[in-house]
Formats: sequence, C-alpha cells, structure tokens
Amino acid sequence: MPPRRYAIGRADEATHPDSARATLSEFLSTFVFVFAAEGSVLALDKAYGGDVLGAAGNLLVAVATALALFAAVASSLNVSGGHVNPAVTFGTLVAGRVSLVRALYYWVAQLLGAIVASLLLRPSTVGMVILTFGLVYTVFATAIDHKRGTLGTIAPLAIAFIVGANTLVGGPFEGGCMNPARAFGPSLVGWRWRNHWVYWLGPFLGAAIAGLIYEFGIIQPEVPVHTHHQPLAPEDY
Amino acid sequence: MPPRRYAIGRADEATHPDSARATLSEFLSTFVFVFAAEGSVLALDKAYGGDVLGAAGNLLVAVATALALFAAVASSLNVSGGHVNPAVTFGTLVAGRVSLVRALYYWVAQLLGAIVASLLLRPSTVGMVILTFGLVYTVFATAIDHKRGTLGTIAPLAIAFIVGANTLVGGPFEGGCMNPARAFGPSLVGWRWRNHWVYWLGPFLGAAIAGLIYEFGIIQPEVPVHTHHQPLAPEDY
Amino acid sequence: MPPRRYAIGRADEATHPDSARATLSEFLSTFVFVFAAEGSVLALDKAYGGDVLGAAGNLLVAVATALALFAAVASSLNVSGGHVNPAVTFGTLVAGRVSLVRALYYWVAQLLGAIVASLLLRPSTVGMVILTFGLVYTVFATAIDHKRGTLGTIAPLAIAFIVGANTLVGGPFEGGCMNPARAFGPSLVGWRWRNHWVYWLGPFLGAAIAGLIYEFGIIQPEVPVHTHHQPLAPEDY
Amino acid sequence: MPPRRYAIGRADEATHPDSARATLSEFLSTFVFVFAAEGSVLALDKAYGGDVLGAAGNLLVAVATALALFAAVASSLNVSGGHVNPAVTFGTLVAGRVSLVRALYYWVAQLLGAIVASLLLRPSTVGMVILTFGLVYTVFATAIDHKRGTLGTIAPLAIAFIVGANTLVGGPFEGGCMNPARAFGPSLVGWRWRNHWVYWLGPFLGAAIAGLIYEFGIIQPEVPVHTHHQPLAPEDY
Repeated sequence: MPPRRYAIGRADEATHPDSARATLSEFLSTFVFVFAAEGSVLALDKAYGGDVLGAAGNLLVAVATALALFAAVASSLNVSGGHVNPAVTFGTLVAGRVSLVRALYYWVAQLLGAIVASLLLRPSTVGMVILTFGLVYTVFATAIDHKRGTLGTIAPLAIAFIVGANTLVGGPFEGGCMNPARAFGPSLVGWRWRNHWVYWLGPFLGAAIAGLIYEFGIIQPEVPVHTHHQPLAPEDY
Repeated sequence: MPPRRYAIGRADEATHPDSARATLSEFLSTFVFVFAAEGSVLALDKAYGGDVLGAAGNLLVAVATALALFAAVASSLNVSGGHVNPAVTFGTLVAGRVSLVRALYYWVAQLLGAIVASLLLRPSTVGMVILTFGLVYTVFATAIDHKRGTLGTIAPLAIAFIVGANTLVGGPFEGGCMNPARAFGPSLVGWRWRNHWVYWLGPFLGAAIAGLIYEFGIIQPEVPVHTHHQPLAPEDY
Repeated sequence: MPPRRYAIGRADEATHPDSARATLSEFLSTFVFVFAAEGSVLALDKAYGGDVLGAAGNLLVAVATALALFAAVASSLNVSGGHVNPAVTFGTLVAGRVSLVRALYYWVAQLLGAIVASLLLRPSTVGMVILTFGLVYTVFATAIDHKRGTLGTIAPLAIAFIVGANTLVGGPFEGGCMNPARAFGPSLVGWRWRNHWVYWLGPFLGAAIAGLIYEFGIIQPEVPVHTHHQPLAPEDY
Repeated sequence: MPPRRYAIGRADEATHPDSARATLSEFLSTFVFVFAAEGSVLALDKAYGGDVLGAAGNLLVAVATALALFAAVASSLNVSGGHVNPAVTFGTLVAGRVSLVRALYYWVAQLLGAIVASLLLRPSTVGMVILTFGLVYTVFATAIDHKRGTLGTIAPLAIAFIVGANTLVGGPFEGGCMNPARAFGPSLVGWRWRNHWVYWLGPFLGAAIAGLIYEFGIIQPEVPVHTHHQPLAPEDY
C-alpha cells in the first residue's frame, strides 16, 4: 500500500508505468476471481437445478469464493495492494491510503474484469483455456515473480486454492481439467482417448497466454530486488 | 502477547493508549468473529429449517467458524495478542502472561463484541454493511497496517477466509455480497438491475466505517516501522 | 528435526531435558489430534447413524482430520519435529534423522496420547474441558512460545484450524463451544440461560490446565535462541 | 525458478545432477498429486455410485484436489519450481523461464508420475503404503529438508493437507489410515484388533520407502544453505 497518506490528486500517477501495472493487476485478479466465484454458482445451477442449493451448495459457493479470492489477492498484493473489490478501494480511499486518481483506475479495472469474466462464462467451450489462464497467472504472480518477497511462502497455497476453486467451476462439465498429466494418466490406464487432445490444447493455450501477459505486462523489467523485505521506493508509487 | 510475566496489577495499564488499542482490537475481532460464526448458524436455520442440520450443515458451521476465527485472530494478534475468547485470556492469565487489569479489559471487550454482533444479526437489512465492515477491517489489519511484520504474508488468507465465512452467513439471503464488482459483472451481462444500488451502498458504507475506525482508532500514529522483524520496544507494553 | 544424521544410540538423550520436552510435546499433540480426528467420526456416527456416511460425511472427517493435524504438527514442529505419527517417526529413523532412543520415546508418547484421547472420548461430559485444552495448548504453542520463529506467522491458522476441527467433534452435542463470549452474546440477546455456567466452567478449566502445562512443562526456561527471526530483548521477558 | 531468461537449449542440463533431482521431484510430486486427485474421484464413485455426485461430491473432489496439489507444489517448489503440470511447464517455457531441455524432462516425469499413480490406484491392497508414502514424502520435503528456507513455515499445512486429501481417497475403504497411533488408540479402547497389524505394516513400509528415496535421491548432500532467501547460484541450474 502507498505509505504516504492523503495523496489524493497526484496527477502524474495517470501516466506512471506502475499505475498501469497495478491497474492491469487489478483487472486480471478481479477477472480470475469473478470467473471462479460466479462460475461456481452457475455450475451448481446448471448441474443440479436452481432449487437444490442446500447446505452443501452454499458451502461449495463459499469455498470456491474463498479459494479464488485468496489466489486473486495474493497475485496482486505486491503490485496493486490486492484490492480486487471496489468497496476495499473505497475504504482505503476514505482512510487516505490511496489517491482518488488511482481509485478511479482501480474501479474501472475491477468492473472491466468482472464484465469480461461474466461474458466469458457464457460460451463454456473456452472454459479450459480460461481456467488454466487463472492457474498459470497465479503461478507467475506468486511463485515466479521475484519481487514478491515473503509471498513466495504461500505460493503453493495460492496455486492449490485457484485449482480448487476452478475445479468447483468446471467439475460438473467436461472442462474442469487444468492439468494434462492429471487427464493423461487415467486416460492411458483406462484407455479412454475420446477428445483427449482438448485436455492438452485448452490448458496449453491458457498457460501460454498467462505466461506472456504476466512476463511482459506486469513483471518489472528492472533489476531484481535482492533483499527480501525491502520497502518499495517512493518512485514505485 | 505482553512478554513480561507476572505483571498482574500494573495499574498504569488502565490509562495507557496501547491498552485502549488492544481492548478495541479485542472488541472488533470478537465482533467480526461472532457475527460470522453465529450468523452461519442462523443462516442455516432460516434457509433450511432447524432439523436438517446433517453432516453438510455441521461442516458448514465448522468451516465458517474456522474461517472467521482465522481472520479475527490474525487481525488482532500483533495488537492485543489475538485472544478473541475469554477462556484464552484466562489461560494466559493463569500462566502469568497477561496482567489481571488487562484480562478484565479484554473480557469486557470480548463480551461487548459478542453482544453487539448478536444484536446486529437480528435486523438483516444492515447485513451487507456489517459483512463488508468485517472484510475491510481484516484488509486494514493484515494487509495495510505496517506494524504487523510477517502477518503480511498471510494477509490474502485472512481476507479470503473472512469472505468465505461471510458468504456462508449471507449466502441464503440476498445480502451475501461484499464486492460490488462481483455483483456488477453478472448483472450487466444478464441485464438484471433490480435493487442493484444496494450492492454498492452497503459495501461502500461498511468499507468507509472500517477504514476510518482502523485508521484513526487502532493504527499507531507514530512513525512507521520500516524493518519487518523489529522487536517491539519496551514502551509498547 | 535433529540436524545430525545417524545419531542412533545417543544414550544421554534418555535423560536430557529436551528429550523430555519433545516427548511430552509428541504426547500432547497426538492427544489433541486423535481426540479431534476420532471424535469427528464418533460425532457423525452418534448424530446421524452409522450408515449415512455419504460424501458430506466423508468430507467432514477428512476436513476435521486435516484441521486438527495442522494444529498438532504446528504445535510440536519446533519442539519434537512434529511427527504425531509412529510411521513418520519410522521414516525419519530409517533415513537416519532421529536416534533409535528418541524414536522409542516418541512411539510410546504417541500411543499414550492416542489411548488417553480415545478413553476421554467416552464420557462426553468433560468434552468442553478437553476441546478448550486443545485450543489453548495450540495458542501457547504457536502464538505465545517465543522460541518458534516463523511459526508465529501461521499461529492464527493453527488456532482457527483446531477450533474448526473441535467444532466438528462437538457440533452435534451441546458441548461444542470453546469460547464463552461466543456463547454469551447469543444467550443474552435471546435470553437463554439454561446451563449457561457450563459454557464458562468447561472452557476456563481447559484453558487453565493447558496454560499451566505448556508454561511449566514445555517452554524452555533458558535463554532464547538467536536465529534470524530476532528474539525479543531479554527485558521483554 | 531459473532467473535467467531464454535459456532454451542449454545442453549440459541433460547431465547435471540438479536436473535429475528436479525431474525426480516433478515425478514424485505429480505421482502424489494424481494419486489423491484421481483417487478421490474413484473413491466417491465406488462408495456411492456414479450418479450421486451432487454438490457434496463435487466439493469433495475439489477439496481433495486442492489439498493434494498444495502438498505437491510445496514439496517440489524449491527443487524443480513446483510445476506438477505440463501446462504450467509450457507457460514458463513460452515466457522464457525454463529451457526446452528441462521442459521435456519435466513433461516426461509428469506423465510418468500420472501413469504410475493411475496404475497403482487399481489394486487397492497397496493403498496404505502409497498414502503413507505421500505423507512421509511431504514431511521430508517441507519439514526436514533444510534447504527449503521459508517453506518450513507452511510445512504443517502441507502435511495436514496431504493427510486430508488422502483421507478423502481412503475414507470409503478400510485403507484410509496413515497413522498407526490414530488406529491404535480407538482399537485398544474398543478392543477391536481385527487386521490391526495392517495399520502398522502399510504405513511403516510407505514411510521407509519415502524416507529412503527423499534422503538419498533428492536432498542435496552439500553443505546446508543458512540464509533463508538466498537466490540460487547459477550452477544450480
């Protein structure tokens, strides 16, 4: 979070590359989160009908929401502050911890992420691509990006949580697999190869898109930070 | 935790600002915890009737309790020791790790937090405000407050857990949404705008209250701590 | 873990105070773990009958087991290596990472812990005492014991997990409450005071026993360890 | 992760001992993951029939997948980068963060791990050996291997998660126990000794195999690394 308070109105934020990175990070994290959270509701709805949302269904949605939010916040915490929510941005705004310019950027990015996620939830054919995009985006943001300091500690948790959430989204459909090895082993042993190529094409497409976007859109190209809890310099904001 | 042992009876604790901060922190954390834990029981009860508490319902209550307690303890650990429970305060008292004066303060704060939570669980109209208050309070306490050292590592987990718990509370009702972007995307794509403004007003109110209370009531106004494992100075106690 | 390899046969281990502490830690952690893991099976069995163990029941037992094991391993990791399982002790023995003498100590402690837990699961009247013992033991072992270094980071998780597991044990019975404030708020608002004193006596007894055992049986009285999570200065104690 | 980019084609990787360790780590982690993830599907299928996969069943599979993946990624993160998934390897390849040679190694290892896991899921008699192998492999990789730095912080979580996942695999069968003490306590108190020796032989065999493979196949024999965020030296790649 920006350590200086009441920075409302710093106009040069609008063109600063870190603002762009933070805004892209908010967009992507909100996209990944809403796709899993809303997707788990739709999956439940389509698979079992709307009126069977008993305790297990309620628990399923809550678990999917918490799992996906964890990965989304962890993936953007050190880039944008990990808001992923217009209300959180508003809370930090009234407390004087984020400028109005940046708050406006975040709100637009968060709403766009939610809209794109909701649009992409309709044609389920691209599901695997997007679920794997969410996974590999999380891998890059928590396990590979060296700037993240102690976040590396919880990288396995973030990776496992987004896979758990996405499994709840894709479970009732065919497209719940983000891992070709996970599909290949049982297919070989049970000798079931129907549409098997989909389990490779979808994940590989999603992984490639996530890898390229993160590598060239969010990771800072400068020299890596070597000390692990170094506070961000003022020009980072 | 107060590191000095057998400090029972330190009377100047009663007027020390850190005692006030710690007591406020115990009040808020117990409030957030009891609202989610008891709220999940009420939600289950109202939505499905009292006698259908099968294995899924029992699991739901336990998951809500654990998720909310994690966020509550993480939010108060470095301010008050993270008791959130009169029995834990009693255990630390008999072990000589907290003074009797402070234990009495904590007990009053914990009981008040539980009472206010139980009162506010009745009129469900304010639900979204309170659920979002819990979320943004957790965001400030774990991701923004710089004094917290390594707690930043688990900030995404605390944030995700309180959202998971609160989703279990609000799920069966309309008011389970703490994130306007999460509501906006599906509303736009499905073009459903009935009462949509509630999904913005509730969370923004809760976020503003949490941001202001935390910023001006709990965060220490002194100079920020820059190194992250720095031991607390003696005068912090 | 003991860092020296092939230490099999170090006879002075038998009388070393650290062996005693590690063995007590294995006993207590296995006791806390088995009480919750086996207790969740019994709770499910008694509440819903033996043949309704569907997917939700299976999930409930697995969640209770994982939650309780996390707290048990975290509570003993830096004292005994966190085995809590004779097979894990055997694996470390054949890899040469624990001596035969210590392995024998651990096995006896683990079996005793499992036996005492199974015995105490029978009379459910002492349930609250024991559930709260497990909670406060975990609080001391992860949040209070200064020797634990980075384990402090996951203290809120360990505390929340043991409460989640114990809620699954005690949920179907009256005795599932480890937090008097959690019981007091709803009781006051709903004006239900039947047997309310039990919600205070049980947890306070369990908390006092856990606080005293941990404080005087496991915490090392000597000088703190000076590793990289800098210990609090001597005057802090 | 290899910090240098576009290292595609470094041929000496093929014979470097660290490549062998990383490839073995990918094989073992994918094996442990697929055994639990696919095993939980089979367990659900066999125990309750294929058409009762309601919300609770879907939740069960997602929880087992997330729990097991967490342990698998945590166990291989500092050795191989924790891919455990051909799509993740592909994403890091197109981002220039892993060489083509290493990617090919990883893909073969991941597919072999998935195949062996799928084969071993058939004869359920060896289940306990393999479930305990997964547990003790995780113990060694997260709690014992000193090279892992901050991963020690989440060791209790990795251990608890693999036990949770494996409980979901073995739960409907007799063979879900990885902890002889957990079986011994209730057996003694209830005086049930039928096939009790299996609860010792299976886990002890699995533990011994895991301990020996990890100790002599993956742990680096060199001097331990003492600083905890030290970047890996170039020759580690």
